[in-house]
Amino acid sequence: MAASLSLPSLSSAHNNASTRLILRTPASLNLRTRPHAVRAVTLTQDDLKRLAADKAVESVKSGMVLGLGTGSTAAFVVAKLGALLASGHLTDIVGVPTSKRTEEQARSLGIPLSILDHNPRLDLAIDGADEVDPDLNLVKGRGGALLREKMVEAASDKFIVVADDTKLVEGLGGSGLAMPVEVVQFCWKYNLARLQDLFKDEGCDAKLRLDDSGKPYVTDNSNYIVDLFFKTPIRDAFAAAAEISSLEGVVEHGLFLNMATSVIIAAKSGVQLLSK
Amino acid sequence: MAASLSLPSLSSAHNNASTRLILRTPASLNLRTRPHAVRAVTLTQDDLKRLAADKAVESVKSGMVLGLGTGSTAAFVVAKLGALLASGHLTDIVGVPTSKRTEEQARSLGIPLSILDHNPRLDLAIDGADEVDPDLNLVKGRGGALLREKMVEAASDKFIVVADDTKLVEGLGGSGLAMPVEVVQFCWKYNLARLQDLFKDEGCDAKLRLDDSGKPYVTDNSNYIVDLFFKTPIRDAFAAAAEISSLEGVVEHGLFLNMATSVIIAAKSGVQLLSK
Repeated sequence: MAASLSLPSLSSAHNNASTRLILRTPASLNLRTRPHAVRAVTLTQDDLKRLAADKAVESVKSGMVLGLGTGSTAAFVVAKLGALLASGHLTDIVGVPTSKRTEEQARSLGIPLSILDHNPRLDLAIDGADEVDPDLNLVKGRGGALLREKMVEAASDKFIVVADDTKLVEGLGGSGLAMPVEVVQFCWKYNLARLQDLFKDEGCDAKLRLDDSGKPYVTDNSNYIVDLFFKTPIRDAFAAAAEISSLEGVVEHGLFLNMATSVIIAAKSGVQLLSK
Repeated sequence: MAASLSLPSLSSAHNNASTRLILRTPASLNLRTRPHAVRAVTLTQDDLKRLAADKAVESVKSGMVLGLGTGSTAAFVVAKLGALLASGHLTDIVGVPTSKRTEEQARSLGIPLSILDHNPRLDLAIDGADEVDPDLNLVKGRGGALLREKMVEAASDKFIVVADDTKLVEGLGGSGLAMPVEVVQFCWKYNLARLQDLFKDEGCDAKLRLDDSGKPYVTDNSNYIVDLFFKTPIRDAFAAAAEISSLEGVVEHGLFLNMATSVIIAAKSGVQLLSK
C-alpha cells in the first residue's frame, strides 16, 4: 500500500516565487492599490498540473538520463526542464522522449535527446497518468503513446507520476474514461470483440479510437487503439493485464502496474506525495 | 506426449493417383518400354511437402471455414484446395489467409476468402512449421507471417501442421535456425539486446532480419523481425514464451505452444500422423 505524505500545503506554496509564476497574475491587475489585501485565487486544472510538474522536477539532478512523458502534465515537466537548462540550474541532462510530440517539444527547448537503443537504462522518468489507484497502479495512454511510455518507464530506475487530483480512482477503470489497448490494424474488429468479451463482469464498451477527421487513430507504431470503457472498476487488474496481453495482435495496454515509484498529486487543497 | 501412428507407407501411397501426380513423372520418359520394371524414385523435399499437404487436405469437408497457412508447404495445401474446388470435390469452403501472399494465391485459385473480423471461429487451420518437438509444440514464422498465423490458428477448432521430417527436433530452437520475434520498429536494437539477454544459458545470437536488398525486413503489420539463433535448445519453452511476451515492444513470437492438434510428417520412409 502507498504511504501518504503531505507536502507543504498550497497556501505555503503560494509564498514561493515559482508558484506565483504559475498563477500568472495578469499584469493588468494593479495589486499596489490594495497591497495588504488577501485575494482568493482560483487555481485552474493547468495550474495544478504545473504545480505537480514543478514538484517532480525537483528530483532531477544534473547528469541524469531522463524519461520524458507525453500529455498535458508531462508537457509542463518538459517546459520546466528546458527552463532550468536554459538558466544553468541544470546541466548535462539527456532526455528520452516517449512520443514524437514530446521529442519535438524537447528539441525546441534545446534538451539533448537520446533513445533506448543508446541509453537502455534511465535514472528517472516523469510522466502524467489518466488514473491512479491507491496502490499507485495506473491507467495511461489516453494520449496515444502508451507503448513508448511503457518501454521508457519500465527502463527507468525511478518513475514519478504527476497528476491532478481528478485522476485518483478507487479501482482502475473507475473513471469511466478510456483504458486504451494498442492493437495491430489486421483484424482489429476481431480483437475489439475479444477485448470487450474479456470484461463481461465489469460491463465494458470497446470502441476504436478515431482521429479528429473520423478516421482510425494511428499510433506512432502504425497500430490502432481500442478504448475500453468500464461500467465498474476492473476487479483484478493484474489478471486483466495478463489476459489482454495474451491476445494475439495486442501490442500493449494502458494498465501500468507496479511501475510508479511515487505519485505527485496536486489538488486545490495542496500537493501530496504518494510513495511505495 | 504425442501418440505416433504410421499411416500407409510411401510404397502403398505410390499406388494412388494423387501420389503419382505428385511425382510428376516426366512425359518424355517412355515407361511403356519397361512396363513391369520397378523403379527407385527419389522423392525431393517438395514431393514430401506435397505428400503431407495432400494428406492434411483429406480432413477438409465441404462447408468448412479454413485457416490457410503461409510458406512452401502451406502453398501446396492451398493449391490442392483450389484443385478440389475446381473439380467439384469440395464445395462451399471459405479460406482465412494468414498473409498477403497466401491471400493472393488463394484468390488466384478462386477460393472464397474471409477474415477473422467476419469469421472469428474457424473449423480447421492447416499450415507448415519450422520446427516440431515431441509434444507437438512448434517454431513458426521464418516466412515472416507469425502474427497472422498465430491469430488465425488460435481461432481454429483444429490445427493440422504439415511438414517434412527435417523439421523434427528434440527441443525447440534445436535446429539452429531462426526463431523469429516480431518487434515494433521503435528502439528495435534495445529489444534485440534484451531478447539476446534472455537466453544467456542457451547461447543465443539475435539478428535483425533483412530483406534481399539488405534493408530491414518489414512484416505485413509494419514491424521488424528479430531472429534468435540458439546454440542449444530452449530449456523451458513455456517460460521463454512468457518472458518474451512480457517485453514491451514485442508484438509476437514464433513459439506456438499447445496449439497444434496433429502433425503430418512426410519422410522418405513414409507419412506419419502425430496426434495429441
